[in-house]
Amino acid sequence: MSPGDLEETFIRGGVVVIIDVLRATSVLPCALASGAARVIPTDSPPNATALLATLDRESTLLCGERDGEKIEGFHLGNSPLEYVPEVVGGKTLIYCSTNGSRAMIRCQNVAEALLASFVNAGAVLERLAGMDRDIIVLCAGNHGRPSMEDTALGGLLVDGLLDADPALLPDDGALIARLVWQRWRGDVPRLLRSTSHGAYLASLGHEADLDFCSQVDLQPIVPLLRQGRIEPGVRRAQTAQAAR
Amino acid sequence: MSPGDLEETFIRGGVVVIIDVLRATSVLPCALASGAARVIPTDSPPNATALLATLDRESTLLCGERDGEKIEGFHLGNSPLEYVPEVVGGKTLIYCSTNGSRAMIRCQNVAEALLASFVNAGAVLERLAGMDRDIIVLCAGNHGRPSMEDTALGGLLVDGLLDADPALLPDDGALIARLVWQRWRGDVPRLLRSTSHGAYLASLGHEADLDFCSQVDLQPIVPLLRQGRIEPGVRRAQTAQAAR
Repeated sequence: MSPGDLEETFIRGGVVVIIDVLRATSVLPCALASGAARVIPTDSPPNATALLATLDRESTLLCGERDGEKIEGFHLGNSPLEYVPEVVGGKTLIYCSTNGSRAMIRCQNVAEALLASFVNAGAVLERLAGMDRDIIVLCAGNHGRPSMEDTALGGLLVDGLLDADPALLPDDGALIARLVWQRWRGDVPRLLRSTSHGAYLASLGHEADLDFCSQVDLQPIVPLLRQGRIEPGVRRAQTAQAAR
Repeated sequence: MSPGDLEETFIRGGVVVIIDVLRATSVLPCALASGAARVIPTDSPPNATALLATLDRESTLLCGERDGEKIEGFHLGNSPLEYVPEVVGGKTLIYCSTNGSRAMIRCQNVAEALLASFVNAGAVLERLAGMDRDIIVLCAGNHGRPSMEDTALGGLLVDGLLDADPALLPDDGALIARLVWQRWRGDVPRLLRSTSHGAYLASLGHEADLDFCSQVDLQPIVPLLRQGRIEPGVRRAQTAQAAR
């Protein structure tokens, strides 16, 4: 439900699915779909700026938000609508957000981590199908507290995973998330407008982002986090084809 | 849903309700009802033993568990059935448990913290009624992950608080907990046997504890945690009477 207390040994051997529906894990599939070469998550604006100084300024953009607003001096904020091909194509994005990038930093030592939101949920489920290791669904939450939208998406994934393999053993958190999804399935746009963080973003004028983030299965891309870098995952079907 | 990531500044000014249904916050109301003078939570068995060396051995007991089992060399384990007047009356208890005492240590700097479980839920709601500060319901969870039984009791409290004051503003976590309680209300014994930790305790032979912990409103005592010590709270009705 939130990243802080999760025991390191528990997550290390599994595949971790990181969720920050509003908006980090909705933004980054779109950034990669628009041709961004890679994303480097950082935990604070000063660290993002320090990292920029070590990279090629021509091909690197500073991106992200603090408490819902664009950061002073950054190239891009945290609206998925900003991440169009003309702006991010071929670029390296240094990315910093209040909850999402913190969850990503937390997962730097895991075998495999990937980013999920409503926009790429189907592609994430496809990638997870048949994996023979623990699946940890890690909600970024909101300042260490659970968020309804992240938990609901977690429940959608639990539902999909159990449909595909009824022998899976969901823990209590997974079952709680499934109860939340059962409450909200079929009404994702209203869900995103009614949660604490959704209502906060609406109050800042980000309604268009809420509508965007509520689109289920818009993107086929699964961002993969490996060794501190996020790159687009190859779809399993393509991997199988390449192996032939 | 679990204590690790909660921001210190968020909890400091409020009243924190600590929940570890299986079994810390079910055990301690019973210990105080049986006449224990006070309880000192510690975060590890070595620290518990070190603390004992500084106190009067005649009137102090080492109590608690690690992963559901009594700790080697401790006087008492973590079954509420052990905490009878003949054993704990007048004693100071040094208490250590896997998740519960960790949540208590986390709350040592808050203005007021109290312990809640199904056995004292009504008394807790009575004490919280009309408080004019934030109420933080803190579930101990299970090794940093949510537990269904703690979340369900959290939902019971949210339900009761909203019944008493519909103007309260529940956050996302409170609303998630309420969904969980709506699923399980009316069947607490089955809830406690079906959750991960409940099933684990049953596998160790602690079924009688599960039955005990599922009794709603058995005890009128609200344990209060102040400056690292837990003592029985005076009921509000009694406080009002004393003030006259």
